[in-house]
Amino acid sequence: MAYPWSVRPLVESFEPYQPGLSMEEIRQRYGLSKVVKLASNENPFGVSPKVAEVIRNAAAYAHRYPQSGNPRLVRALASYYGVDGKRIFVGDGSDEIIDLLIRVKSEPGVSNIVAFKPCFGLYTTQTIFHGCELRQTPLNSDFTHDFDGLLSLVDDNTSLVLITSPDNPSGRLAPREKILEFAKKLPSSCLLVVDEAYIEFAGDPEKVSVIGDLETVPNLAVMRTFSKVYALAGLRIGYIILPEHLADCMWRVRLPFSLNIIAQEAAIAALADAPFREKSILQAEKGRTWLSEKLSGLGFEVIPSHSNFIMVKPPCSPKELNAYLLENGYIIRALSSYGLPDYLRISVGTDDDNHELISLISSFPGLK
Amino acid sequence: MAYPWSVRPLVESFEPYQPGLSMEEIRQRYGLSKVVKLASNENPFGVSPKVAEVIRNAAAYAHRYPQSGNPRLVRALASYYGVDGKRIFVGDGSDEIIDLLIRVKSEPGVSNIVAFKPCFGLYTTQTIFHGCELRQTPLNSDFTHDFDGLLSLVDDNTSLVLITSPDNPSGRLAPREKILEFAKKLPSSCLLVVDEAYIEFAGDPEKVSVIGDLETVPNLAVMRTFSKVYALAGLRIGYIILPEHLADCMWRVRLPFSLNIIAQEAAIAALADAPFREKSILQAEKGRTWLSEKLSGLGFEVIPSHSNFIMVKPPCSPKELNAYLLENGYIIRALSSYGLPDYLRISVGTDDDNHELISLISSFPGLK
Repeated sequence: MAYPWSVRPLVESFEPYQPGLSMEEIRQRYGLSKVVKLASNENPFGVSPKVAEVIRNAAAYAHRYPQSGNPRLVRALASYYGVDGKRIFVGDGSDEIIDLLIRVKSEPGVSNIVAFKPCFGLYTTQTIFHGCELRQTPLNSDFTHDFDGLLSLVDDNTSLVLITSPDNPSGRLAPREKILEFAKKLPSSCLLVVDEAYIEFAGDPEKVSVIGDLETVPNLAVMRTFSKVYALAGLRIGYIILPEHLADCMWRVRLPFSLNIIAQEAAIAALADAPFREKSILQAEKGRTWLSEKLSGLGFEVIPSHSNFIMVKPPCSPKELNAYLLENGYIIRALSSYGLPDYLRISVGTDDDNHELISLISSFPGLK
Repeated sequence: MAYPWSVRPLVESFEPYQPGLSMEEIRQRYGLSKVVKLASNENPFGVSPKVAEVIRNAAAYAHRYPQSGNPRLVRALASYYGVDGKRIFVGDGSDEIIDLLIRVKSEPGVSNIVAFKPCFGLYTTQTIFHGCELRQTPLNSDFTHDFDGLLSLVDDNTSLVLITSPDNPSGRLAPREKILEFAKKLPSSCLLVVDEAYIEFAGDPEKVSVIGDLETVPNLAVMRTFSKVYALAGLRIGYIILPEHLADCMWRVRLPFSLNIIAQEAAIAALADAPFREKSILQAEKGRTWLSEKLSGLGFEVIPSHSNFIMVKPPCSPKELNAYLLENGYIIRALSSYGLPDYLRISVGTDDDNHELISLISSFPGLK
């Protein structure tokens, strides 16, 4: 062995993460005065004025440890959703929740975890890191959810099924009835987690979310985030509503202070700011409709989106178009890492961002 | 089984975490107008004015994802310590680092991890959660580090030895020479991690820290935090300097955005604010000396501290004294959870805090 200190062999098989260039790096590299990032499905408005005030006041208590168990945020979420707080768990982004849920539910070397392909990258990495088997079935060719394919992978050792709806990067919504029908076919020891990171952009919550079905479907959990509609991607706050016993187990093993003290206070303020949430949802709906129409007109294939981004297949080289946009200060998302090299993902921006982007794409010489 | 969804059996053996009352809850319960917390070794000055300004400005970018790999903070630390940035890893508090290092270095069911007893609680919980064996040897009766006892537990399957110096809760400093001597006796596959969370309070860094020895002792790592001298406990920032290959492995498996974007910027500003750091160190040194003298005078046994807290054995019931202080708005730390029910830990406060605390203790009726 080349190193005198040993490393768990599994870990050495992981690929180093390749972060993209930051906005500042792109500004410098291309000598740009303005850079617009439409690559990470962030909220183009920035945080709400009410949240901004909470952050400005936070210096007064940043030297204090957060309260373990984050009871203030849990109470706020319980009240907002009208569910028992004992069923709520909050984490340092949905990332921490996914990792912890896999570790709580799954026995290394025994359990398997089922997901679509492509799926959120952390479903894959955290399953493997925990020493479990990942089983994947492709989405349908139109990127709708193939629940029969998913079910065919499930057996008595399946600890978790992880799905995202609306899906990322396609933006496709899984019909609520199909999700519930699927959940009822699972072994009772298997938990279905519906990652609803983008659900606020998908229309009437009662019709599209399964959050109202948690009481009647015992092996169902719903995960959400403050990173999108609440504009708090930088502060890392995710939450999940799950069976009480599982929530209790999650709290038993969570690192006591993983959720930052400013993050908690910002999340409470964001949850209470309904006008900002409504404005963000309207912008996503309006922007994706407008962008979809314009891009269809330019010959792009557009996957119908229920989210704050759209996935498109350009009528030209996606790589060259992406490079052209980058040189002109517009960062969008190439999808090779999702196994979709022919597609690009564009986050809905402000009206100005969207108009400038379409204007720029129209001027791309590679576009017939 | 009482629940239809199965949980990893190991997890059900974990005790639920029992958080203490918050300052606000204590204020309400005892009808107090003022509460002073000297329980968690936080910095009594709060964050520095320069860090406060960074936090106030942070609302402008809190909707953005942090840059994966936290290159700006890594560069700042590399420059500050004069080490290669490839040897630096940063996490959501030292908590995340401990958890991840155990997962990177140790094979479940095979590896063992060695520590003192008592030790930082997360050494224990994260070892067990990962399915590894924890081996512990007691500190000496005067709370100094028993390296012979520690070495006797090490074998070829020991992936990590975790020690804290200055120790928490005793405040004892392990002599640098002893640490180095011990490191050299370890199998080359075993990494010694020195958790120097409180080292800034322990005197001349060149004499007390092993950070200067990393180049010459290949199986050594040093972990530090922004929670204490830098007054950023609420923002959760820890860092470790370790062999480059291990640092690379840690980055490969870390959740990409675990370190909050405000936390990163606050940490960079804190690191650059030398006057605040010096002031904090002076206050800890002055305060612990003064508190130690006063408490010795009142008949307390005081363990010599190299930190920003002191551990004491009162000449009365620690439980009753603790309750009396709480009723009067002073929160200190009982140590039953460390297996030290006869002792109490007191964080050094501001001069006013320290004087009022001594005045209050002097008035305790249970004190002869």
